[in-house]
Amino acid sequence: MPSSAFTFKKSIATVSLSGTLPEKLEAAASIGFDGVEIFENDLLTFDGSPADVRRIAEGLGLEITIFQPFRDFEAMPDPIRARNLDRAERKFDVMQELGTDLVLVCSNVQPAAIDDPARAAADLAEMAERARRRGLRVGYEALAWGRHVNRWRQAWDIVQRADHPALGLIVDSFHTLALDDDPSGIADLPGDRIFFVQLADAPKLSMDVLSWSRHFRNFPGQGQLPVGRFVDAVLASGYRGPLSLEIFNDEFRAAPARLTALDGLRSLIHTEAEAGFGPGLPAPPVCRGVEFLEFAVDAAARDKLSALLGSLGFRHAGRHRSKDVDLYRQGGVNLVLNSEEDSAASEHFQMHGPSVCAMAFAVDDAARTIARAEALRCVLWRERVGDGERRIPALRAPDGTLIYLVDDKEANRSIWEDDFHLFAEEPAGAAGPPPLLGIDHVAQALPFGRMDGFVLFYRTVFGFVPESLWELPDPYGLIRSRALVSPDAEPGRGVRLPLNISESRRTATGRFVSATAGAGVHHIAFAASDAAALVEDRLAAGAPFLPIPANYYDDLAVKHPLDDAALEALKQRELLYDRDGQADGGGEFLHAYTDSFDDRFFFEVVERRAGYRQFGAVNAAVRMAVQAQLREGARPELYLD
Amino acid sequence: MPSSAFTFKKSIATVSLSGTLPEKLEAAASIGFDGVEIFENDLLTFDGSPADVRRIAEGLGLEITIFQPFRDFEAMPDPIRARNLDRAERKFDVMQELGTDLVLVCSNVQPAAIDDPARAAADLAEMAERARRRGLRVGYEALAWGRHVNRWRQAWDIVQRADHPALGLIVDSFHTLALDDDPSGIADLPGDRIFFVQLADAPKLSMDVLSWSRHFRNFPGQGQLPVGRFVDAVLASGYRGPLSLEIFNDEFRAAPARLTALDGLRSLIHTEAEAGFGPGLPAPPVCRGVEFLEFAVDAAARDKLSALLGSLGFRHAGRHRSKDVDLYRQGGVNLVLNSEEDSAASEHFQMHGPSVCAMAFAVDDAARTIARAEALRCVLWRERVGDGERRIPALRAPDGTLIYLVDDKEANRSIWEDDFHLFAEEPAGAAGPPPLLGIDHVAQALPFGRMDGFVLFYRTVFGFVPESLWELPDPYGLIRSRALVSPDAEPGRGVRLPLNISESRRTATGRFVSATAGAGVHHIAFAASDAAALVEDRLAAGAPFLPIPANYYDDLAVKHPLDDAALEALKQRELLYDRDGQADGGGEFLHAYTDSFDDRFFFEVVERRAGYRQFGAVNAAVRMAVQAQLREGARPELYLD
Repeated sequence: MPSSAFTFKKSIATVSLSGTLPEKLEAAASIGFDGVEIFENDLLTFDGSPADVRRIAEGLGLEITIFQPFRDFEAMPDPIRARNLDRAERKFDVMQELGTDLVLVCSNVQPAAIDDPARAAADLAEMAERARRRGLRVGYEALAWGRHVNRWRQAWDIVQRADHPALGLIVDSFHTLALDDDPSGIADLPGDRIFFVQLADAPKLSMDVLSWSRHFRNFPGQGQLPVGRFVDAVLASGYRGPLSLEIFNDEFRAAPARLTALDGLRSLIHTEAEAGFGPGLPAPPVCRGVEFLEFAVDAAARDKLSALLGSLGFRHAGRHRSKDVDLYRQGGVNLVLNSEEDSAASEHFQMHGPSVCAMAFAVDDAARTIARAEALRCVLWRERVGDGERRIPALRAPDGTLIYLVDDKEANRSIWEDDFHLFAEEPAGAAGPPPLLGIDHVAQALPFGRMDGFVLFYRTVFGFVPESLWELPDPYGLIRSRALVSPDAEPGRGVRLPLNISESRRTATGRFVSATAGAGVHHIAFAASDAAALVEDRLAAGAPFLPIPANYYDDLAVKHPLDDAALEALKQRELLYDRDGQADGGGEFLHAYTDSFDDRFFFEVVERRAGYRQFGAVNAAVRMAVQAQLREGARPELYLD
Repeated sequence: MPSSAFTFKKSIATVSLSGTLPEKLEAAASIGFDGVEIFENDLLTFDGSPADVRRIAEGLGLEITIFQPFRDFEAMPDPIRARNLDRAERKFDVMQELGTDLVLVCSNVQPAAIDDPARAAADLAEMAERARRRGLRVGYEALAWGRHVNRWRQAWDIVQRADHPALGLIVDSFHTLALDDDPSGIADLPGDRIFFVQLADAPKLSMDVLSWSRHFRNFPGQGQLPVGRFVDAVLASGYRGPLSLEIFNDEFRAAPARLTALDGLRSLIHTEAEAGFGPGLPAPPVCRGVEFLEFAVDAAARDKLSALLGSLGFRHAGRHRSKDVDLYRQGGVNLVLNSEEDSAASEHFQMHGPSVCAMAFAVDDAARTIARAEALRCVLWRERVGDGERRIPALRAPDGTLIYLVDDKEANRSIWEDDFHLFAEEPAGAAGPPPLLGIDHVAQALPFGRMDGFVLFYRTVFGFVPESLWELPDPYGLIRSRALVSPDAEPGRGVRLPLNISESRRTATGRFVSATAGAGVHHIAFAASDAAALVEDRLAAGAPFLPIPANYYDDLAVKHPLDDAALEALKQRELLYDRDGQADGGGEFLHAYTDSFDDRFFFEVVERRAGYRQFGAVNAAVRMAVQAQLREGARPELYLD
């Protein structure tokens, strides 16, 4: 679709944000929304008049785009009908004080409601006429659980029957898509008869639509509904009013309002651009892979980590020209240990302890990616550099982790040659294992409630694709995991970022988040072309791979058609095994984990065979149980006589 | 049903408890379970052999009651059929090492499974024959989401067709009741053909049965399924094997294993007694009401709290004969302020700050209640008393709060006369409001994940009835609230205990739990016969009732048919209003809240009219928003020019 210069007003419902009403308004304004929907409950609990709300909003430069909801109005039997019109007059008073001209009437859910579109139309026409006399307008929306009206087409039929200029249709992506209703017909409506558009996404959950709607909605791009199709249809109608986010979500209710508001605006900017409107967005990058990871360490942690990396086969490959920064390298994997004082890394170390402070993605065009990130309201970062050193463009992930963008186009001289004294490589031993292909995946542990925000960030800025959700049983609680993967990922190429959250603070993920104050990267997997050879070689050199229980291999023999030799080869090398059924005959996955470094991050060696696409989630329980046993010292001998 | 002396073996599945396998076994044993189900995943991730598990269990005095699950076995097409029998042989090896003779085979969920009961029976007969040769047995259970077999009657049909002595039926309350299947026919089965019984309850949720089963099961008595009917049917069959708890629950996975195990054993003891088996339980108490609440304070908090109580109309009515303990009284409400050094209260104060350290329930028979509590594995408590003072029997709630039991039968001399110097009452003023009737309800804020444990405690020990769950929107996150109510509660009589939890640590509930380290009682409501008169009188005396926004009353006029005078009367007194539709014409509820004491607990005055049974949940959002505005200082004037 060609990009149109038209930019939509961007609005958010107060119910989508946490806090008191003034806090909500301030968050929406400071992030850059044009308007807000005033959700009635936020007004009722506010210790000031509707006129005060209007003044606060005006002071913040916010338009009040709508007042909502007005419930259970139309098609009621007669004594109630008259009362409902009185109710409407009272709410019109409030709207005039608030300074908004539009009210949202959602379809009636009362058992007493009469199943008669003509009657509904007559009632709404009467309400609209009363509104018109005051210069106000009424929008009618089909709730997905409305008693008789739950589809946009029914609501539109009633609006047409009522045939009143002050009555229009309101459409909501959740109410439409949750019922699997087809939005495409909205394109054929006259756009000026659509008075308002509400947008929400949601994960696909099989539960009753009311609970789903009240607790699990999220911003477009965070869920699994085809919101883009909905938006295309609505904008094709010619609608040019606000795009407004109305989200009921338990996590959003608890999150800081500005964080939520930023996610919301990012979602709307992306949605608008995907629909071909607004100023447009530069294309997302093509990501070749993770060029390097940077660890924030002090001298002691540096020495300890370099010893661990040595045992895993990394060599000290270079030293930064001007800073206390060392490069460790093995095949296609670059790891940077930054112990420079008074740097961004040392700040990171102060806050989070030894941890990954930066990831670098190799992209086709760093400048274009930075422009896209900026348009999506990301925080950019410029490092201080020495003479002749390269400044690598960077932005911050939602937890503050730096993401460097290493530009493939400018790779006539590598960043390593610019900034590092590189040490001569020793001649490869004849018998050594084949070198690592690269970084296969980088798993992050997120504070509870932040999954949606990270998914949106990686999806919109980088174009990564969210995979399905996994549930991993840690001995001390459940981990929920969702990976974001660059579209062209294959073994040794592309970016894969599993994101993990845990409600429990006792799990490895929960403990990591608490102990590191949310440092992010929890584990790093290296891609090997021959994991067995590599792990065998490294075990001999004393690498601390996790011991895997014999019971695991007994069960593996039952689950998969592995012959005894193959099984014994895995067992000798502490290698876990998985198989997926997607590729012909099934891809295979071999992987081994290290114990964790200071109860923080840990490493993994993985080998993907025949197009295996997953992450060995079935084996995560074994890894977590063994790590817990090592940590807790809960060894069987303690319990045996 | 007459009580039978037969006591069932009590077992729990390792998946129900958190931790490593040795931790799970130790928790189950230390709490007093007879046996455990070994859940396969716990074995696979355990760094020791099945024989090690057997030795640990034996050392702890635990029987391994079953090994489970064996999945997707029966009625598979032919190459897989042979492999499945090999799989079975491998698992029989494991069982023999473990020292258990029973394996649970759950009905096949594979799309490839053949819909043929004869074929399923033949396969299971073959498996059972192989098991018999080793002295083992096979139990077959219908999973609620089995491909072709999902009802106990289908599984029983297959077991009958197979007609093998080493093959029996396994029934599970969740799988039966989740499908709304009728368990009564189980009573007609031969009890010795039922090899094992698994019990689980669950809240009623409208979602897919697999997700419901994997995340939301809980112990019998914690949910809403008719587990008692299921147990009655099963025991009527003559089944005398173990009663075993198999619970998949996200919160249990994260909770300390001993806490969960204690809840589980309490649930089984209660379930057995309700079914008329085991040693039996003394009857639950008849609770007349809350006789008093005791606050742990230091001298400063005592003075501040006594001033607040004074403004609410309480008088200093007595002083303990031997301790730094003061009685405040108004009508039927007794509040005790305990500032005694070196006491249980001072310990409580050290840990939790100024807070309620004890509740006293007036019961028909304290000794019988204590005997019941002891049989249900509650922790009892004996206080140190002075000469001639009464020792009040007491037990501890799951969070350590003391619950005293004041015996109506021994009330020839009141506890107050025994232990206190009572001050003479001033003659009542002619114009004063009618006295308080008593304590209407005591709301507790619980740490996240502890709701089920508290529900079970109050339900089993005291016979309180759990009401339906409410969701209350705090400005900083959702509160979930469920009240336990004594069966005979009426205005001024009975015990009502709303229990509140919040996933968010930013809500009033979440902040309270963090700030007080889980002190429990968050707010205390006094029952008035004329709330308007009382609040008017007390506002004049400077009582700190929460100011209610004018917008609330504007909306109230729209929602309820209140005339202007009634509305104005509420508004003048900061009274909130609710109406329920249960009684004829609807009961009414008038209530006013105080601001919180040191951002901890707060008080409420309530008036129930015409049988109103709820707690004004619709108004909780207003209370929480106003308290947050006062706390945060988020006053509109800050945002206005």
